[in-house]
Amino acid sequence: MAPVRNARVIFNSIPAPNTYPEPGKTTVYDDSQKIDPETVPLHGGFLVKTLVLSIDPYMRGRMRDPSIPSYSPPYPLGKPLSNFAVGRVLRSEHPAVKAGDHIYGYLPFQEYAVFTDPAQLGDVFRVLENKERLPWSAYVGVCGMPGATAHHAWHAFADAKPGETVFVTAAAGPVGATVVQLAKAAGLKVIASAGSDEKVAFVKSLGADLVFNYKKEDAKTVLEREGGIDIYWDNVGGQTLEAALDAAHVHARFIECGMISGYNAEPYAPKNLMLIVGKQIRINGFIVGSLYPKYRDQFYKEIPPMVASGQIKFSEDRSHGLEAAGEAILAVQKGTNNGKKVIVVAEDE
Amino acid sequence: MAPVRNARVIFNSIPAPNTYPEPGKTTVYDDSQKIDPETVPLHGGFLVKTLVLSIDPYMRGRMRDPSIPSYSPPYPLGKPLSNFAVGRVLRSEHPAVKAGDHIYGYLPFQEYAVFTDPAQLGDVFRVLENKERLPWSAYVGVCGMPGATAHHAWHAFADAKPGETVFVTAAAGPVGATVVQLAKAAGLKVIASAGSDEKVAFVKSLGADLVFNYKKEDAKTVLEREGGIDIYWDNVGGQTLEAALDAAHVHARFIECGMISGYNAEPYAPKNLMLIVGKQIRINGFIVGSLYPKYRDQFYKEIPPMVASGQIKFSEDRSHGLEAAGEAILAVQKGTNNGKKVIVVAEDE
Repeated sequence: MAPVRNARVIFNSIPAPNTYPEPGKTTVYDDSQKIDPETVPLHGGFLVKTLVLSIDPYMRGRMRDPSIPSYSPPYPLGKPLSNFAVGRVLRSEHPAVKAGDHIYGYLPFQEYAVFTDPAQLGDVFRVLENKERLPWSAYVGVCGMPGATAHHAWHAFADAKPGETVFVTAAAGPVGATVVQLAKAAGLKVIASAGSDEKVAFVKSLGADLVFNYKKEDAKTVLEREGGIDIYWDNVGGQTLEAALDAAHVHARFIECGMISGYNAEPYAPKNLMLIVGKQIRINGFIVGSLYPKYRDQFYKEIPPMVASGQIKFSEDRSHGLEAAGEAILAVQKGTNNGKKVIVVAEDE
Repeated sequence: MAPVRNARVIFNSIPAPNTYPEPGKTTVYDDSQKIDPETVPLHGGFLVKTLVLSIDPYMRGRMRDPSIPSYSPPYPLGKPLSNFAVGRVLRSEHPAVKAGDHIYGYLPFQEYAVFTDPAQLGDVFRVLENKERLPWSAYVGVCGMPGATAHHAWHAFADAKPGETVFVTAAAGPVGATVVQLAKAAGLKVIASAGSDEKVAFVKSLGADLVFNYKKEDAKTVLEREGGIDIYWDNVGGQTLEAALDAAHVHARFIECGMISGYNAEPYAPKNLMLIVGKQIRINGFIVGSLYPKYRDQFYKEIPPMVASGQIKFSEDRSHGLEAAGEAILAVQKGTNNGKKVIVVAEDE
């Protein structure tokens, strides 16, 4: 087989704080490299063909000056981006994987990659069985990191009791949508917000009791009218967090998953933190990786069958080809995507 | 016995939001009433002579427009203030208490009071044994609500591990000082702040590793220099809370006991709440009353003997007579008191 294109998406420049990443500037598509999948040396490792890449809100935090510490490593300039992905093993010299296996883990934003570091196996890559024959893209969404985020933190922090009320933000995204469905299954009243009428309709179809378009209705007004909340799933922070504090019942639980309202703009600072004391609120910030050891096995046992049976629904917003990555990243930061954003790099042949 | 004076301190007017209470305006001293302790009818209840009244920061929150909901009931205008106190039972027709008993509970700010509601016994009043012969005032401080606040929440929320670092604010007050000593006993490094050099010296005498005067040194600078914190005991909120978030280690625990920086002025809104997610911080707001059922028996068993033996030290700032209440309340809001503020209404004869 002759060498084939091995296109990549390079992290090209650090966006200024409080600005959106710019396709073509922050990231650039590069198709200058080639690879021969049949002959590339494996050095005891394996060769992966990238099938589907996840585009997630948290990636904005990795596009930073490397001198700024944070929970996730900064993307190195001049190198391909990387993120959760599913790939197919084309060749392997490593005993843990074999040609034909589908693996889930961090992959670079390129069409083919050779992994030679044995430390990258095990906890880093997971061989997917997919007995349920789900589309591979589901394994970067509802059955991947975003689904695990919802599932693990809901079990760890919600202390949900039937009849309580939860407020879920960014509820049309893969995390929020999964939380909505877990909460309904647990017998809660679910109030949810999303940023377009189309998203609102999708979240309603998941069974949420009340869904509103936060660009048209004010969270504070809605939450007060609905009589307050016991659990707040925060994906957005800022003014919505302030409204949730105002509407919180005594002993409310706040699950702090993300604060996207402050990722690309000066964060709004809630003025009512004093309510944390008086209302005896518990707030849990978390990164899903810390919860894997306790919840991951349960997740892979429970969630894919529920997705296959339709008990848990999901929606996807697919782009095709690595050329689309820059715009996809921007869409996820702006919320103009509809459902879990994925880049289909190659169909599974 | 002829009728005697029964002086009171009346809640006279609601201070404007974000202002300090004004002695003589917010509260007024009134000595127009009389009572005959020997003949006043008890209606099946009992008569208490007030010995010592506690002055606490949280009282500012009760001096509010009654239409504003909060965790503690608003003080009714025209009625005496009330707060934690120790009194001596002079006469009783109630089986739960007898003449000569010392009781701890909410008392009105007046020299004598008759309690006729049996519901006020039990959980509301506690008969103090005081085998250790501590001064009665200790039972509104280190052995009362403030000590219980420190003890209960430390046990409930700190998850302290030896070698960790805790930052305690308002550390010369009865809550903070007790936290400092519990933390040292648990093998932690203790960083503490207070608002005067005299207070700093007192907190150092409790064994804190590093104590600073927050009016002279910036919390952010100190915490960074000291390498960050694992636990934050918050009595102040605002900019200090922001500094604590900046200095927090991953998986830090924040115990939100109070935010006095915002009780009498526009609260400062911390701008870095996003760190709650990335640093996976757990925040517990609490009101001590919710923790009584689980921790109170342990507290009364453990703490008074430790105070008697000198293992736990405390300091008091005493005023004498109800006339002093208005100024005492203001001092506690401004932090110009030195140690637990009490009003000695009468010596125990």
